[in-house]
Amino acid sequence: MASQEKRKTRLFASHPPQRYFLLLQLGIFLATLVFLLSIIMTTVSSVMQQAYALVGSSDQLTSLFDAMVASLFFKIAILFICLFLLSALLGLFFLERLTGPLVRIQRVLEEIGSGRIPETDVHLRESDYPTELANALSSAIAYLRRKKAGM
Amino acid sequence: MASQEKRKTRLFASHPPQRYFLLLQLGIFLATLVFLLSIIMTTVSSVMQQAYALVGSSDQLTSLFDAMVASLFFKIAILFICLFLLSALLGLFFLERLTGPLVRIQRVLEEIGSGRIPETDVHLRESDYPTELANALSSAIAYLRRKKAGM
Repeated sequence: MASQEKRKTRLFASHPPQRYFLLLQLGIFLATLVFLLSIIMTTVSSVMQQAYALVGSSDQLTSLFDAMVASLFFKIAILFICLFLLSALLGLFFLERLTGPLVRIQRVLEEIGSGRIPETDVHLRESDYPTELANALSSAIAYLRRKKAGM
Repeated sequence: MASQEKRKTRLFASHPPQRYFLLLQLGIFLATLVFLLSIIMTTVSSVMQQAYALVGSSDQLTSLFDAMVASLFFKIAILFICLFLLSALLGLFFLERLTGPLVRIQRVLEEIGSGRIPETDVHLRESDYPTELANALSSAIAYLRRKKAGM
């Protein structure tokens, strides 16, 4: 039971909220990359036209500007991909910290629903938020245990 | 009580996980903006050197390249800020969908802990994940109510 629990918590992004979050995040970033490419291309090509007006057009200058577009897009795209990974991991980390306790509390509630009062206290991962929830769950179980003992 | 609940759920980013998530997300994006500026400046200045070697340096060409750096950075920074807002809202939306049920379940567990079995079923917001949890909570409350009635 304990190992199954562990496996479930480890399978990052296996819960529906995490999966949808990742998919939407991916969609936002792909759309942004398209915008990024169009911003770089239009800006550089407008500057290229102005440079031609100043110094005359030349094939060498054109290939220089083309190389600049490719280099800028490549470097900034890598920056975006790092940003995407960091931002997605950050979101998943926080979502995981909340779904973990939810899954464990669900198991305990299912047990109570089928008439078994858990014998041991339920330990949720240590973190600021779910601590209050763990205390509430412990006090509920303690009350049920006292009641059972009193009958 | 119901209005207080509503107020609490509405204060987006008021729960600790949401606040930390937003702060970390903001940190990641500010660091990325610094990288972005340095990428644009180094790429454009290296292209500028190569253009000077081709057509000779001129003040007009220099100010053209300076304007290009400013324009690229301004446009891409706006793209980044939009990306940041979308990505942060996406994360907050998913976190909110999980903290909402957690807060409500915590209240119910606190009530059970102090000996009051809730009279009415607890309704959690409709969504894929917390539905299973809501069912578990309902079955636990139903069991406790049956037990109370049987005594």
